[in-house]
Amino acid sequence: MGQDRVRIGVVAPASRLEPALAEAVLQLAEGLYPACPPELHFSPQCFLSSGHFAGDDDARASAFLAVANDERLDALWFARGGYGSCRLAERLLPQLTDAARRKTYLGYSDAGFLLAGLYKAGFGRLAHGPMPADIGRPGGEAAVKRALAFLVDGAADALEATVSPEKSTAAFNITVLSHLIGTPLQPDLTSHIVMLEEVAEAMYRIDRALFQITSNAAMRGVAGIMLGRCSPIPANQPDFQKTEEEVARYWCGRSGIPYLGRADIGHDVDNKIVPFGHWRARG
Amino acid sequence: MGQDRVRIGVVAPASRLEPALAEAVLQLAEGLYPACPPELHFSPQCFLSSGHFAGDDDARASAFLAVANDERLDALWFARGGYGSCRLAERLLPQLTDAARRKTYLGYSDAGFLLAGLYKAGFGRLAHGPMPADIGRPGGEAAVKRALAFLVDGAADALEATVSPEKSTAAFNITVLSHLIGTPLQPDLTSHIVMLEEVAEAMYRIDRALFQITSNAAMRGVAGIMLGRCSPIPANQPDFQKTEEEVARYWCGRSGIPYLGRADIGHDVDNKIVPFGHWRARG
Repeated sequence: MGQDRVRIGVVAPASRLEPALAEAVLQLAEGLYPACPPELHFSPQCFLSSGHFAGDDDARASAFLAVANDERLDALWFARGGYGSCRLAERLLPQLTDAARRKTYLGYSDAGFLLAGLYKAGFGRLAHGPMPADIGRPGGEAAVKRALAFLVDGAADALEATVSPEKSTAAFNITVLSHLIGTPLQPDLTSHIVMLEEVAEAMYRIDRALFQITSNAAMRGVAGIMLGRCSPIPANQPDFQKTEEEVARYWCGRSGIPYLGRADIGHDVDNKIVPFGHWRARG
Repeated sequence: MGQDRVRIGVVAPASRLEPALAEAVLQLAEGLYPACPPELHFSPQCFLSSGHFAGDDDARASAFLAVANDERLDALWFARGGYGSCRLAERLLPQLTDAARRKTYLGYSDAGFLLAGLYKAGFGRLAHGPMPADIGRPGGEAAVKRALAFLVDGAADALEATVSPEKSTAAFNITVLSHLIGTPLQPDLTSHIVMLEEVAEAMYRIDRALFQITSNAAMRGVAGIMLGRCSPIPANQPDFQKTEEEVARYWCGRSGIPYLGRADIGHDVDNKIVPFGHWRARG
């Protein structure tokens, strides 16, 4: 194995990944990089099943630590979201080594619980973006290709268009961010542009989560909020009579947080990559 | 109007109340107290409609303040839950007078946002319990009768059976409590027995909300958690393989919070009344 091959470990701290999706990602990667494909190591834990989760808490925590602390791997790629990362965070974070600290981490949705905790712990190479499971979406190859371009080449065109070296950014699923407010996982996002996206939550739930996010004293220090895509939004009973952008503007106005427009992120194949903090290309 | 008639104002800071339910509550009250029925004043605001809410934020806030600050009323009874109280809390709380501070407040579910904020502000007569809208449930007269027994007579048998003058208690809907963690509405529940109930949330959502509640540093100082009813729980995809009580025990165990068994509260006609803090009968 040449030293110039990027080595990526995939682990699933939340829900289970279908083996067929891992296989599709491996095939795509080989096709994209015929001369020097990245090494993609899917932890067998990705395919375990324990109720809602890809294996029980012990199995998921062990696999995460094995990948994160592996000196030979350059990146940890979250296999998919679903639910379950918050169950592991408190036990994982104290066990991460310097090898874990040097890695790049990429994921979104439920992975936001761990990205938040890692960012709070001072990890410097975290990003919100597509995961292997996205290959299961129609046209999902584009999302995985973007993730690989970022992980393998640090490709600037994989980034959300407004990301720049001068800005501190972060991105979260709205529900995930709301549920980590007030917990030890909440990072300091002062002076960050925070991009938020949602999927399959009714408007009253989006409104309630944005109440919590924008009411938190620390969150009122962000540089601004940008709203990603929130589709599909299930019907509200009764009709909410306000769009997600009207609701985001409302809570930003109430809380004195600048509303900075739409962000090109979401639970879809167009989901662009948003680094946490100031992104620096790997030297 | 004799001075011994209890005067109750009803207001709807969240969702709209059907007028027929108000009428049914008035008839029930007259039948229960033929000699000296309580005065029940349903604010016309209860019947307004603005999207998800019983009138827009201004209408709901104005009506709440009018009832809360009315010297002639003994109690403020939340008409129903739904969603919307969190939108009003920050603007309402600074405008409440001593007349508001002397009142008894009764409600649950979404009303928990305001009960929390009022408790944090030092209000002394707050309780979690049935609302007028509960008369719409099959057998709902029992719930409303219990609420009136509490509001009119301070009836001890309306209280949750484990409530005693020696204990500080509080009660919340799980989702509502999770969404006020880290906001200015979060009260100090140190040394309180906290009773939690839920309705119509999938197990993974209950688990996620309990992560947040039990991970918050201040919440780890509660005397214990009791679990009310959480039914109906929609099917989890995939099956969660754990009951709500197993999940509550799990998070209590993880966080060092004593799990103290089941509480007789819930979104149902058996919902008993839980005072906030040490309840003292009105002298």
